[in-house]
Amino acid sequence: MPAMDGPFLRACRLEKSSPTPVWFLRQAGRYMPEYRKVRAKVSFPKLCRDPGLCAEVAVTAQRRLGVDAAIVFSDILLVLEPLGFRLEYAPGGPKILNPVRRPSCLKRLREADPAALAFIAEAVKATRAALPSDIPLIGFSGAPFTLASYAIEGGSSRNFQKTKAFLYRHPEAWNELLGMISRALIGLLQAQATAGAQALQLFDSWVGCLSPSDYRARVLPHTRRILRTLPRGVPVIHFGTSTGGLLEAMRDAGGDVIGLDPTVSMAEARRRLGPKVAVQGNLDPCVLFSDRRTIRREARRILAEAGGRGHIFNLGHGVLPTTPVDNVRALVDFVHEATT
Amino acid sequence: MPAMDGPFLRACRLEKSSPTPVWFLRQAGRYMPEYRKVRAKVSFPKLCRDPGLCAEVAVTAQRRLGVDAAIVFSDILLVLEPLGFRLEYAPGGPKILNPVRRPSCLKRLREADPAALAFIAEAVKATRAALPSDIPLIGFSGAPFTLASYAIEGGSSRNFQKTKAFLYRHPEAWNELLGMISRALIGLLQAQATAGAQALQLFDSWVGCLSPSDYRARVLPHTRRILRTLPRGVPVIHFGTSTGGLLEAMRDAGGDVIGLDPTVSMAEARRRLGPKVAVQGNLDPCVLFSDRRTIRREARRILAEAGGRGHIFNLGHGVLPTTPVDNVRALVDFVHEATT
Repeated sequence: MPAMDGPFLRACRLEKSSPTPVWFLRQAGRYMPEYRKVRAKVSFPKLCRDPGLCAEVAVTAQRRLGVDAAIVFSDILLVLEPLGFRLEYAPGGPKILNPVRRPSCLKRLREADPAALAFIAEAVKATRAALPSDIPLIGFSGAPFTLASYAIEGGSSRNFQKTKAFLYRHPEAWNELLGMISRALIGLLQAQATAGAQALQLFDSWVGCLSPSDYRARVLPHTRRILRTLPRGVPVIHFGTSTGGLLEAMRDAGGDVIGLDPTVSMAEARRRLGPKVAVQGNLDPCVLFSDRRTIRREARRILAEAGGRGHIFNLGHGVLPTTPVDNVRALVDFVHEATT
Repeated sequence: MPAMDGPFLRACRLEKSSPTPVWFLRQAGRYMPEYRKVRAKVSFPKLCRDPGLCAEVAVTAQRRLGVDAAIVFSDILLVLEPLGFRLEYAPGGPKILNPVRRPSCLKRLREADPAALAFIAEAVKATRAALPSDIPLIGFSGAPFTLASYAIEGGSSRNFQKTKAFLYRHPEAWNELLGMISRALIGLLQAQATAGAQALQLFDSWVGCLSPSDYRARVLPHTRRILRTLPRGVPVIHFGTSTGGLLEAMRDAGGDVIGLDPTVSMAEARRRLGPKVAVQGNLDPCVLFSDRRTIRREARRILAEAGGRGHIFNLGHGVLPTTPVDNVRALVDFVHEATT
C-alpha cells in the first residue's frame, strides 16, 4: 500500500497539509559549499549530463535544508540542443550560437529526438532512488515562450526586443517555432514523469514581459496544449516572474499550482486566481540577505496572506549565489515551526 | 485670456478630449536622424547641459511626429550629481562611480544645491519658448526608488539584488537615502514647473521589481511626499514598468495620471485604478517594428480598452533605438484619425 502523500503533494492537490511544505527554486546551487565542491571538479554542462552527480547535488541540498521536496538537477536550455540549437554556457550567461533571426532560420531546425535527452530521465531515476521515500521529486522544463526568447535573442535579454519583433512581424513562423519547442517539451516532461518525477514545474521565467493580450493570443495555446497532454495525477506547477498582469491568463493556460514571484501580493494573487488552484511562492530571494527577524517577519506575512491550504512556501525566484546557507535553513525551520 | 487647454492637458484632468492625445516616451532619441545629427556633434551629457540644443531636439521631435505634447530633453540621473554621486555615461549604460554600498557611504553625500541643476530649468524655458503655444511641455524627474537603485547598484541591474539587500538590511539608512533624493527631486520638479512645464512625469521605471508590501512600506511614503508638495494645477504622470502587482499602490502614492507599461491590460488597469485617475500608455514599443496593419490593430485595441476619456496614448516604455520613424509618425496619425 503506498504511503500517504506528504505535505508537498497534498498542497499541490489543495488538500490540508501541516506543516506548510517548503522548497526553493535553485536550492541546489552556487550558494551551497557542497555544490561548489562538485562544480570545482566538473563543468555545468557535464554535471547536467551525469545522472549520479545530478542525484548527489539534488539530494544533498534537500538533506542540508530539510525541505519538503527535491527538484532534479538540470537546465531548461538543454532541450534546445536536439532541436538544432548550439548552446554554450559562457561565464556571462548561456548563449545560443545560432539564434533564430528570421523565419528562414527555422529550416535549420529539426524535430527533437527524445533519446538525445535520455540523460535527464536518468537523472530523475538516480535522484528518485537516492532520495528518502517520503520526499517527492519534481521534474521540470522551460516553457515555450521562455525557450523561444532564448532561441531568438541568443541569450538572456533585458527588453526581449528581438523576440517581440519576431512575434509581431512573423506570427506564423512564431507559431511554428513554439510548436516545435512544445513537442520537445511534451516528450521531455513525459519522460521525467515516467522516470519517477511526482510533480513537474514549467518555468516560463520571462513571460512577464508580454502584454496579456499577446500572451493569450500567441503563447497560451502552446502552453495549454503541453499541460493538457501531460499525464493526469502528476501535479504541475506553472511558474513565471513579473506576472502581475498575467495571473488569470496563466491560470487559464493550466497548472495545478501557480508559481508567484515577489512582485505580486500573495493575498491579491489568491483572490485573483480563485480557489481551484494552489499557489507557490513568493518571498523575495533578497530577504535572505537580511537578519533572522526580518526573514521571519516576511515569511510570516506570506504565510498569513496565503492562508494555509494549497500553499507551497518558496522564494519568488531562485536562491542567489551569495545567499548565506544558514539563513535558508533557518527559513525552512521557521516555516515548519510556524505551520505545525 | 489664455487659450483653452488642448487634448493632452484635458486628458490629464479627465476631461473629454478629441482627438485622444498622443506622445511617446523618449520621442526625441536615437531612432530619429535629426537627433543622431545633433549627437554626432555633442556628447549626451553636454547635450543635456545645453538648453538651446535641448530645445532643438525636443521641438524637432514634436514637429516631426505631430504629437500632442513635448517633453524636455534631460536625464533622470543628473539629479544625483549635486548629491555627491559621480556619474559617467558609458557605452554600456550609465554608471555611478561611487555607489552606496553601506550606510556609512551616506556620510559622503550632501543636500543638493538647486543651482547645480539650473540648466534643466533653462532647458524647460528654452523649449517652452521654441514650442508652438498650443503644445504643452512636460518636465520630469526620476522617482526615489529608481534613483536609489542606480545609486546603490552603480548602474542598471537585472535583479536589483544590492538595492533590495540594502533595503532589507538597513531600513533606516534606506529611508535617509530616499529622503535626500526626494528633497532634491522636489526642488527639481518645482523648478521645472516654475520655468514653464505644464505637466510633470515621475519616472519610477524600475519600481516593478518590488513586492507590493515593500513598496507600500519603504517607497510609497517618499513618493507621496514629493507628489503632495508639488504645485496644484500642474498635472503629474506617475510612471513605472512591470507594475502589474503595484497599480493600486502607485495610485495611492499619487499622480493625476498613471503611466502603464505593456505588461498590464489597459482594460484591467482602468478597472483596478478606478475613475479618479487618468491613464497613459500602453503600446509595446516592439509593435513599432511590425507592419502598419499590426500597429493599427494594437493601437485600436488599446484605444478601445482605455475607453476615451482620461487616456493619453503612449508607448509602455521608450521608443527603441532602431524603430522606423515612419511607423511612429503613422501611429500618431492613426490615433488622431481614429479618435477625432
